[in-house]
Amino acid sequence: RILRYLYLYMKDLPRPSFMSCTLKELNIGTHESVITASQDTPIITALNIFVENRISALPVVDKDGRVVDIYAKFDVINLAAEKTYNNLDITIAQALQHREQQGAESVAKCLASETLKTVIERIVKAEVHRLVIVDEDDGVTGIVSLSDILRFIVLKPMSEEPVKTS
Amino acid sequence: RILRYLYLYMKDLPRPSFMSCTLKELNIGTHESVITASQDTPIITALNIFVENRISALPVVDKDGRVVDIYAKFDVINLAAEKTYNNLDITIAQALQHREQQGAESVAKCLASETLKTVIERIVKAEVHRLVIVDEDDGVTGIVSLSDILRFIVLKPMSEEPVKTS
Ligand SMILES: Nc1ncnc2c1ncn2[C@@H]1O[C@H](COP(=O)(O)O)[C@@H](O)[C@H]1O
Ligand SMILES: Nc1ncnc2c1ncn2[C@@H]1O[C@H](COP(=O)(O)O)[C@@H](O)[C@H]1O
Repeated sequence: RILRYLYLYMKDLPRPSFMSCTLKELNIGTHESVITASQDTPIITALNIFVENRISALPVVDKDGRVVDIYAKFDVINLAAEKTYNNLDITIAQALQHREQQGAESVAKCLASETLKTVIERIVKAEVHRLVIVDEDDGVTGIVSLSDILRFIVLKPMSEEPVKTS
Repeated sequence: RILRYLYLYMKDLPRPSFMSCTLKELNIGTHESVITASQDTPIITALNIFVENRISALPVVDKDGRVVDIYAKFDVINLAAEKTYNNLDITIAQALQHREQQGAESVAKCLASETLKTVIERIVKAEVHRLVIVDEDDGVTGIVSLSDILRFIVLKPMSEEPVKTS
């Protein structure tokens, strides 16, 4: 009878309980083998990484693995607009020097221990496509992008959300 | 001798001559089998299309194939932020009704006969990740996204841009 009660109680819980779970708990995002660049990485290398790995951004890290900037697919269009696409040997630092906001503060990031709710709110507020997942020392540990959240919403266990048939 | 002259002349032309070529000439973008949605398409269908086809936006077309709106990956995050993610049966029209700008005018688009330069400038100005390629009647014929331009810049024929070795 207690089990039955628990079951009914669970069923009536507001559905979006996963919004209060952390990224780590939900296993949302990429938490291993994050691909990063350094400020000295040539643009051509970054572009090739985008194309080959089908990702849309590279956290830029210092020699200790701490995030200092981010280079995204969208920054390439500035390269094209500014007609510097003929010199793809320039470094990421050079390519980003015209950007208004710069440096570690301009990177939208989160901890793996923050909730999905917090992450979504931060993405909306910062109008970005991904957060860099860092540890307490700003060391890069992962990436959580729109694609990851989207995949989670689509594939989240059916038990959690009964599918209407009709 | 004339050939020799022509060759030297060609070599000295400002390199970015491809910027004045049209999308069609350069074959940049997707010009066939564009995946579209209608205003009545349920959100869950759109999300599945994003995940399965690894694309980031769906042009929304009327019954005659004319673009009337666009539904992008980024719109999903609003779904999540507004906590409507439990009802993925709502249609694209319903999901987009809170958006400020709406309708055909809000869609950044181009013709396949426009130049790469024009396309890049429009993408930068509109701050979007892709343009919908349309014909003169706003009928959807393709998509040109950041990914396509990026791939072109990386893979463009070596003859056009000698690679520095060192
Ligand atoms: N720099 C990166 N290193 C490793 N994985 C990444 C990186 N950027 C994005 N991803 C993952 O690649 C997938 C597509 O990312 P995106 O194209 O940024 O939406 C998502 O699962 C991301 O978590
Ligand atoms: N709705 C669509 N239908 C067909 N191809 C698309 C669509 N959206 C994007 N693409 C193509 O898919 C690739 C990745 O697009 P994106 O993820 O939007 O950067 C690019 O080659 C686009 O031209």
